[in-house]
Amino acid sequence: MHISNEEKDAVYKTIYNRRDTRGEFLDEEIDDKVINKLLDAAHHAPSVGFMQPWDFIVVKDKKIKQAIKNGFQVAHDEAKEMFDNEKRDVYKTLKLEGIEEAPIGICITCDRSRSGDTVIGRTANLEMDLYSSVCAVQTLWLAARAENLGVGWVSIIHHEVLRNVLDIPEDIMPIAYLCIGKVSHFHDKPELEKAGWLPRIDLDDLVHYDSWNNKKS
Amino acid sequence: MHISNEEKDAVYKTIYNRRDTRGEFLDEEIDDKVINKLLDAAHHAPSVGFMQPWDFIVVKDKKIKQAIKNGFQVAHDEAKEMFDNEKRDVYKTLKLEGIEEAPIGICITCDRSRSGDTVIGRTANLEMDLYSSVCAVQTLWLAARAENLGVGWVSIIHHEVLRNVLDIPEDIMPIAYLCIGKVSHFHDKPELEKAGWLPRIDLDDLVHYDSWNNKKS
Repeated sequence: MHISNEEKDAVYKTIYNRRDTRGEFLDEEIDDKVINKLLDAAHHAPSVGFMQPWDFIVVKDKKIKQAIKNGFQVAHDEAKEMFDNEKRDVYKTLKLEGIEEAPIGICITCDRSRSGDTVIGRTANLEMDLYSSVCAVQTLWLAARAENLGVGWVSIIHHEVLRNVLDIPEDIMPIAYLCIGKVSHFHDKPELEKAGWLPRIDLDDLVHYDSWNNKKS
Repeated sequence: MHISNEEKDAVYKTIYNRRDTRGEFLDEEIDDKVINKLLDAAHHAPSVGFMQPWDFIVVKDKKIKQAIKNGFQVAHDEAKEMFDNEKRDVYKTLKLEGIEEAPIGICITCDRSRSGDTVIGRTANLEMDLYSSVCAVQTLWLAARAENLGVGWVSIIHHEVLRNVLDIPEDIMPIAYLCIGKVSHFHDKPELEKAGWLPRIDLDDLVHYDSWNNKKS
């Protein structure tokens, strides 16, 4: 199946215009068919040994969202104490989630024993199944951007909270909790870059040739 | 920035036609400009706290590829012993890498201390930086598919081999070694699905609503 130049440009456009959305969610429903398209796209991410270790918990219930928001608040309060004074003041001003505003939450997990103990490609690197579920996250994220939907990854929350609130079994690993919805707009750059928290690194500083010690710049 | 319906379709087409390539690499060079486009796309993956923890080691040297292939062979021989008889026979027939055939290898890593000890979004979940580098892998993979290039993730290799061969420092975590190149063709389905190793799971079996215990099917 050939990808044309126009189609290629569309993929790059989607990659470059994907953002982590926190503050721009609109109070509008998303069609279930669209949600299903996102989940099916995520289900076509690469997985080690074709084990497809992911599950998707789609959250619409307001009480569930509220409980997840409470979990965020606990981890967020803990985090505040970890930054030095100057950074702490900035940290407190940042909007870091849109759990209750987003119409949809999706928790993506990893079932590490889905296809037995021995998995092709996981024999030397046991983390590969977790990485497969992360590939599903990024695939869903790009599909959502292509649907002009915003996605925000809420990582400031303890796994135990997700487990308790969503009844996730002990042997299933939570990977990501995503907030998804229509947005007022997408930022032209990542918010942390715009806020001056960290600059975009020059690509040349990250590329090595045949050896770590051989760089252009 | 609005994504049109045609552009959206292109993104889905790319997601659905991405494959893990092992046996179809052609002995043809890839333009350095294209490699750079892939790396720049990967550099625009989401990263926790905008830490951009990834580095990219681009491998063209044949001796380096040979050493990596040797590392694969060791881990592959170990893996063979882990499967039961029947599965072992099938496992032995599978082509699981194209390290020497692919014109380009790219090792993607994670620098866990890139932006200091305390990273926004990593405070409750320390694995988030590793997951950011995985997002870069999947972003690069989709960009490569949009360029009609095949990508194969070689996970049957020990990290120490990648460290030694590519001079990766002790505090840098290898995440993926990818083989990249032009291909004779893309398979219509994942090879492990075609080989009858495992079936594609029905999406309905993977989707839960508001709670793990609430499924459609």
